[in-house]
Amino acid sequence: MKIITPYERKVFYYETDKMNVVHHSNYIRMFEEARIDFLEKAGMPFEDIEKFGVMVPVLSAECHYISPLVFDEKFAVYQKIEKFNGVRLEISYRIVSRDSGKLCAVGKTSHCFTDMNMKPIRTKGKYPEIYSVFNKYTGYETED
Amino acid sequence: MKIITPYERKVFYYETDKMNVVHHSNYIRMFEEARIDFLEKAGMPFEDIEKFGVMVPVLSAECHYISPLVFDEKFAVYQKIEKFNGVRLEISYRIVSRDSGKLCAVGKTSHCFTDMNMKPIRTKGKYPEIYSVFNKYTGYETED
Amino acid sequence: MKIITPYERKVFYYETDKMNVVHHSNYIRMFEEARIDFLEKAGMPFEDIEKFGVMVPVLSAECHYISPLVFDEKFAVYQKIEKFNGVRLEISYRIVSRDSGKLCAVGKTSHCFTDMNMKPIRTKGKYPEIYSVFNKYTGYETED
Amino acid sequence: MKIITPYERKVFYYETDKMNVVHHSNYIRMFEEARIDFLEKAGMPFEDIEKFGVMVPVLSAECHYISPLVFDEKFAVYQKIEKFNGVRLEISYRIVSRDSGKLCAVGKTSHCFTDMNMKPIRTKGKYPEIYSVFNKYTGYETED
Repeated sequence: MKIITPYERKVFYYETDKMNVVHHSNYIRMFEEARIDFLEKAGMPFEDIEKFGVMVPVLSAECHYISPLVFDEKFAVYQKIEKFNGVRLEISYRIVSRDSGKLCAVGKTSHCFTDMNMKPIRTKGKYPEIYSVFNKYTGYETED
Repeated sequence: MKIITPYERKVFYYETDKMNVVHHSNYIRMFEEARIDFLEKAGMPFEDIEKFGVMVPVLSAECHYISPLVFDEKFAVYQKIEKFNGVRLEISYRIVSRDSGKLCAVGKTSHCFTDMNMKPIRTKGKYPEIYSVFNKYTGYETED
Repeated sequence: MKIITPYERKVFYYETDKMNVVHHSNYIRMFEEARIDFLEKAGMPFEDIEKFGVMVPVLSAECHYISPLVFDEKFAVYQKIEKFNGVRLEISYRIVSRDSGKLCAVGKTSHCFTDMNMKPIRTKGKYPEIYSVFNKYTGYETED
Repeated sequence: MKIITPYERKVFYYETDKMNVVHHSNYIRMFEEARIDFLEKAGMPFEDIEKFGVMVPVLSAECHYISPLVFDEKFAVYQKIEKFNGVRLEISYRIVSRDSGKLCAVGKTSHCFTDMNMKPIRTKGKYPEIYSVFNKYTGYETED
């Protein structure tokens, strides 16, 4: 099992709002970017999952805002697969500023797996390649 | 205390994603739209709050996705001020499709009040106009 | 041919950026909202076009920014179908503040019609219902 | 004058729409990302410009869509400062897929320089550091 590093980028101008900080909805998008980056680094890119005819919709998302990111600030998203049983998936996230070192936000998303008609599916028997990647990294947290 | 109706609009094309439904991050934005609509209907538009030099940043946001909204679907956001003590504010939301009648998403945001330097403030003594509006509608839920 | 009124709404908070005004990319989105509103008012809602298996991708878009819209400002998008020949479509837009009466932005988009595989199609013979609506309103400008 | 490489990243999931491709408005945002990346590489990061009390609003933007980018596709934004006279600035952009090598979009933005009250200013006399960077790179195109 190889080490997976956190997802990193800088804040875009259009992500700010008139409060001069990143709009709170954008952290939910950063979580998604990080998830997709994680899966690619884990060897199961999201497009491959979709090529199997599998989607991974979000069942819930939450974010706690601690210290606001500002324009051009570099940040990292650390994440951990908290739970996975082949049917449901839960991931937690910590967004950390690479400039200040501050913890900026923490959050969580939960997901299920569905076919292209949004019908829930079990990955274990039917999609062993997908199952094995998530299973392997369950409990794993990205590390620098 | 006058009746406040839910916020309503249709889904925009650019709010959809390749799963053919509204991207999950956009529900957090719909909550914000609804909040601002509520305050205007309650007689304390958000710009007036900002004119007092007060901001109402989001401390946390969460959303549970139940039935996805699709392009051009008309929806309503019902909301309720769950808690308010002059310092902290908690609002809950229910997004309902006006086309199908289905419950699409439920969520919650929590907020504090700050000055323009993001320092937390108490509205009770200092901004009685702001305090009284939130206080009056605490426990109130929008109604058709 | 019935009168089609301009598209109207207020600026959302998340549409602003740290310059305190609407981010310039969002005007392109407002044009899209207005297009879809126009088609619905004209009796050919966009979903119906898509039900025919027809898409109307954007070939080009441009916007000239004149006076910036700010948070919660009410605006109207006036539009005119400049050209339509069954294959290509060109629409112009004027965004006007309902609060100040100022002209805020002008723009233009051009489009073609394609099947679901993004292959260009002629609407005239194959989709007379679509053709006739665009043809009827060619040269028409929304009016209050 | 050092070589400035094009801006690169992959398409985010939330940038797609129900047509399965990147929503057209997002290319305007990619131009902005590229601009800011360019300025940083040129030694005059955008925050430094803003620290001088100078803003660089967009006067116009246009984009011609040639081949749609899809989810997770890697792209590069090549850009060239077409014109700069201390007062006005014009930049052109080419978005190229790193996966297919295809030209995906071309575009242009024009800008002026203003103080924090959106009053236009001349950079030449007043902000020589800003002037010299833009002047030095006028006519320059990013290169691999």
